[in-house]
Amino acid sequence: MKATQYEGNKTFSVIEKEMDPPAAGEVRIKVAYCGVCGTDVHIYHGAMDQRVKIPQSIGHEMSGEIDAVGEGVTGFSPGEKVVVRPLDNRAEKPSDKGYSHICKDLKFIGIDSPGAMQAYWNVPAFTLHKLPDTIDMKLAALVEPLAVACHDVRMGEVQAGETAVVLGGGPIGLLVAMVARAKGADVIISEINATRVALAEALGFTVVNPSQTDLVQFIEEKTDGALADVVFEVAGAQPALDVMTQVAGIRGRIVMVAIHGQPKNVDLFRFFWKELKLIGARVYEEEDYEESITMISRHELPFEKLITQTEPLRNVQKVFETIAANPAGMKYLLDCQS
Amino acid sequence: MKATQYEGNKTFSVIEKEMDPPAAGEVRIKVAYCGVCGTDVHIYHGAMDQRVKIPQSIGHEMSGEIDAVGEGVTGFSPGEKVVVRPLDNRAEKPSDKGYSHICKDLKFIGIDSPGAMQAYWNVPAFTLHKLPDTIDMKLAALVEPLAVACHDVRMGEVQAGETAVVLGGGPIGLLVAMVARAKGADVIISEINATRVALAEALGFTVVNPSQTDLVQFIEEKTDGALADVVFEVAGAQPALDVMTQVAGIRGRIVMVAIHGQPKNVDLFRFFWKELKLIGARVYEEEDYEESITMISRHELPFEKLITQTEPLRNVQKVFETIAANPAGMKYLLDCQS
Repeated sequence: MKATQYEGNKTFSVIEKEMDPPAAGEVRIKVAYCGVCGTDVHIYHGAMDQRVKIPQSIGHEMSGEIDAVGEGVTGFSPGEKVVVRPLDNRAEKPSDKGYSHICKDLKFIGIDSPGAMQAYWNVPAFTLHKLPDTIDMKLAALVEPLAVACHDVRMGEVQAGETAVVLGGGPIGLLVAMVARAKGADVIISEINATRVALAEALGFTVVNPSQTDLVQFIEEKTDGALADVVFEVAGAQPALDVMTQVAGIRGRIVMVAIHGQPKNVDLFRFFWKELKLIGARVYEEEDYEESITMISRHELPFEKLITQTEPLRNVQKVFETIAANPAGMKYLLDCQS
Repeated sequence: MKATQYEGNKTFSVIEKEMDPPAAGEVRIKVAYCGVCGTDVHIYHGAMDQRVKIPQSIGHEMSGEIDAVGEGVTGFSPGEKVVVRPLDNRAEKPSDKGYSHICKDLKFIGIDSPGAMQAYWNVPAFTLHKLPDTIDMKLAALVEPLAVACHDVRMGEVQAGETAVVLGGGPIGLLVAMVARAKGADVIISEINATRVALAEALGFTVVNPSQTDLVQFIEEKTDGALADVVFEVAGAQPALDVMTQVAGIRGRIVMVAIHGQPKNVDLFRFFWKELKLIGARVYEEEDYEESITMISRHELPFEKLITQTEPLRNVQKVFETIAANPAGMKYLLDCQS
């Protein structure tokens, strides 16, 4: 079988290797497509070399079908279409409070253990979600990032008729915007990159480029002074942190989706003054995956517009180089069977 | 009648003046006691001279009885014991979203208009809450700060059996701790001042002095690694902001009670990683006042231990000088009829 391996130093190898039989409790998946996540790009740039065991296959935004079933696995059969929820923990300690997706000893499959950028992939059976047989397997590779957006919107308790501001129009920002709009929210995206602005507009969103337009004034006028009910911070930059507390109205919710590696300046006075809420949101729970699968299998939104390019697995090096040279692109998929 | 006036420059005058009749929609209250709030001390230090119209009576933590009723006021009669919820707005604009206590045009009575540190005080009738006839009028002057604590605990959704950490053991911190304990929470107070530590311990609380004991390790051990369910930031200092995200466990709630005048460093990564919530909490709503009145009228907690000293109204200058010289004191009351 063909597999790719991250070798460190911005390098991927493509190797031929024997297929492993699935261990007890595991299944072997024949991977159809695997998308490249922002986290994979961080790995490529060497930012996560302390977690990845070089050489290692990475990748977790995948679709596939069951190829073989290990000892003790019930309820799954070869040929069934599946996606993997790549979180390896079942929150068995009392201190986990039942939240497996954010528990202390969580391992992320595809980072802390081998990932999906290979033809066949062995994973614990408890990570599987079944897909309907009629699903488009390319779009199914978006189940994982869409589940992130479903989780973010659920954590933000977005209601129909509310005004939602999404700070940052990258892949996750656009998916958050699409899900929030599907809930009935009036969505405004703030984005400075012209390519991303154009894509967001093509998807029918109101887009503000904050380097050209005063975002706070824009939202103020659009809402007759009520400002935003919910804000998603997906940009990960200080200007977004500065503006998030300004565009949020009374009792506004701010969902922290971005990963800020260092402590940052936050206007806590506005949290007090307007009784704002800041809501941390990380990955997804089971119900977010099910919601994402339903949305994709019904093709409720034009998800295909987020797929920038699909390349055969053997072109993995080229794909990462392309992304690194063009950070405004959206979602790149690897076809893991060609 | 006797009235005190803030004159600027850390100075109060005590004057004799004519009583005003209550205007339409107002009542005149014969003030019994008026407590000194931290905000009043800020006014004394000149920090709010842009809001106070010098010379002006200040004060809002009061108890009293109705002395006269203005035109159009129904449901209130002279002799009834009352407290004032000193928020002058009824959230009539759509952009207020029904939240009168945090709406844009809110005026705080006793800061933006004359306050209770006088023998008689005219206020809008819609600000009144009735007190049971048997209530202790000294303790009733604590209704307002206790309502702050009731609001903070309600916003923090404290449940019986949860672990609550209160950062800062001043008057509001202690009241928050008392209310959280009354809800069944296991409360730990973090405080560095020895006098305040002693009072909190006398009230039966577990107190950690973070300059002597590692607070995070203490909470970690006490909770078998689960850490705090809810944290109240009442200290208003950077070390409290640094520790609040460390002592909060998975899905922990952090209630922002303190007023941070400037943007501060916040560890947003931990908000993302543990899915923490930051909850801004300001003043109180009607139901918090009613809860506070019930707690005080039933004398459910040893509120009298928070009253450091009671002085006649004429000693207002001495009282503020005493507080300024001894910031570790708790609640000072003015007897407005002597």
